[in-house]
Amino acid sequence: MQEITEPTLLLDKAKCKDNIDKMLAKAKSRNLIFRPHFKTHQAQTIGKWFKEKGVTKITVSSLKMANYFANDGWKDITIAFPVNILQITSLNKLSNKIELNLTILSAEVAEFLNKNIEHKTGIFVKIDTGYGRTGLKSTNTKEIDNILKIIELSGNLVFKGFLAHSGDTYHAKNTDEILQIHEKSRTELIKLKEEYIHDFPEIIISLGDTPSCTLSNNFSGIDEIRPGNFVFYDLMQYNLGVCKFSNIAIAMKCPVVAIHPERNQVIIHGGGVHFSKESINYKGNTIYGIAAKTKDEKWNEPNNDILLTSLSQEHGTLTVSNSEIKNISIGDIITIIPIHACLTANLMKKYLTFENKEILHL
Amino acid sequence: MQEITEPTLLLDKAKCKDNIDKMLAKAKSRNLIFRPHFKTHQAQTIGKWFKEKGVTKITVSSLKMANYFANDGWKDITIAFPVNILQITSLNKLSNKIELNLTILSAEVAEFLNKNIEHKTGIFVKIDTGYGRTGLKSTNTKEIDNILKIIELSGNLVFKGFLAHSGDTYHAKNTDEILQIHEKSRTELIKLKEEYIHDFPEIIISLGDTPSCTLSNNFSGIDEIRPGNFVFYDLMQYNLGVCKFSNIAIAMKCPVVAIHPERNQVIIHGGGVHFSKESINYKGNTIYGIAAKTKDEKWNEPNNDILLTSLSQEHGTLTVSNSEIKNISIGDIITIIPIHACLTANLMKKYLTFENKEILHL
Repeated sequence: MQEITEPTLLLDKAKCKDNIDKMLAKAKSRNLIFRPHFKTHQAQTIGKWFKEKGVTKITVSSLKMANYFANDGWKDITIAFPVNILQITSLNKLSNKIELNLTILSAEVAEFLNKNIEHKTGIFVKIDTGYGRTGLKSTNTKEIDNILKIIELSGNLVFKGFLAHSGDTYHAKNTDEILQIHEKSRTELIKLKEEYIHDFPEIIISLGDTPSCTLSNNFSGIDEIRPGNFVFYDLMQYNLGVCKFSNIAIAMKCPVVAIHPERNQVIIHGGGVHFSKESINYKGNTIYGIAAKTKDEKWNEPNNDILLTSLSQEHGTLTVSNSEIKNISIGDIITIIPIHACLTANLMKKYLTFENKEILHL
Repeated sequence: MQEITEPTLLLDKAKCKDNIDKMLAKAKSRNLIFRPHFKTHQAQTIGKWFKEKGVTKITVSSLKMANYFANDGWKDITIAFPVNILQITSLNKLSNKIELNLTILSAEVAEFLNKNIEHKTGIFVKIDTGYGRTGLKSTNTKEIDNILKIIELSGNLVFKGFLAHSGDTYHAKNTDEILQIHEKSRTELIKLKEEYIHDFPEIIISLGDTPSCTLSNNFSGIDEIRPGNFVFYDLMQYNLGVCKFSNIAIAMKCPVVAIHPERNQVIIHGGGVHFSKESINYKGNTIYGIAAKTKDEKWNEPNNDILLTSLSQEHGTLTVSNSEIKNISIGDIITIIPIHACLTANLMKKYLTFENKEILHL
């Protein structure tokens, strides 16, 4: 592998492809539409690994990302983010090229699209099943009805169904709670679908964050899943009990630039502009990453003796056990698993594989 | 100004130039070398605004940044980050082109540079005056002596002096505490300089974070200041009492995509990939930004009725007062001041000025 001299985001292609295979197999075995979220990897090259396996539908979280993947031949894209009406000109361009699905949660935006969308466009109504970020409550059938009345009379808007994201699974205390949250969302959406299926026989339910999709075995009544993070997993998922440490497909390589044995700390080049400032509570400590034990370049086990406990713009501070600090020298490269793969990948803008290939990010 | 349809980082050029002028005037009036830190703006164009005022020396926090500014004609650069010995080949290339100063804190790295540096290179010894991130304690004259012995016998290493960063000012409870921290650092460094000035008559003391440089009037005994953030300031500086709100030179423009009046929340396009996940405690709340009242495009006053209280990858959640939420519509653009200008600018990668000019970031 090429010599690493600065903070570098490594991608274990085999692990990544294995993560893709497993999720795809799960979707297939449950007869689910698999519409993976590409906001985590944001790379056309990694998109191609999905395409090779027969995936044709994807999810993104911005119009920019939708255009980036459409330019690489993706023809069926859902933007799982509330429509930004200011982007109508660009949305019209894209909806002329591909099968585009948009996400809305108000009659106001439905009406705006009705008046301004120039081509057939799928519409998902965003439901908030408990995360509390955005979406309509499933009990708010008044606004749902208002939206559907507009869509029904519209020439270009096609009602696709109900879409939810159980982001509250990320705040679960344990894996049982993740399963409970998933069950609650599933039940709510099924009830909603039953209320509307008569008038819209083609509608589907789209659900599925990485924690739920990885852990749950009950997708009964669900039509489509949209997990994203599973392509890499990360320390947050590991800490939630969602994945094994060995499933994590990305790791940061950071050079050691200073050692402070008197306070058990090591300074690395690797800061907030590399990892992001996302933190988790890990065994009582706020941490920004954890080192991995490596063997033949692979990272399969955490090294709990080396925690990334502080970040400034370019500096990272590792808090290291007495026994471990003796093994660290200036100029060493420490392998660190990031907290949140999506934000770290977004900052690093490229991946380096074991095959020495640089994979570019949007 | 061009139509804004997506998260956009605005730069008020007049405010930025005013911030530069004021800090430069302060440095001049105290007879200080002004070596501004360019890690905040990371833009060759903004660097030129300093150059126009006669600034010739700069600070950066990585070799990458040093190369970027050297390529734009900067000839005297200090990398205020512990030397990463793995980058020796690139360091040698750069030190052949410009007057380069490096920062070290161990005899081990001094010895490495002594053996490997091929051109005259300035060396600052990094002192930790209380921040606790990295550097030698000023009382650790044993290691300082070890370093200086190596430098003295070296052909290419030139001892420039002692460099410190009082980053602890960012954790100060009030402006008095900032001044106390600055005084402590100043006193420690002066004492250190006095111990070594006989043997190294040319050495200088380099100090100066934005809070200290903005607030303090006592730079007696200091030779050089290296503030960076003052070029823009931000909500963190405002919250610390360092700057006025009207001094802040950058603001994010974010489209409103959903409104939840029942819980006083508004969803904007603008998330962790735009603002960064840096937060502050503001009047008892953890916040990621605050809206500004605007007049003729300028932001001079905070709107405490609109706080950015939560961020995910692309979504931002504003918590809005009853009276203010009535004034917000889908498709509006909200002006939000970021917490940490350095990290937001790093993510956004470009600035838009009122003159409709895009300024690119490294």
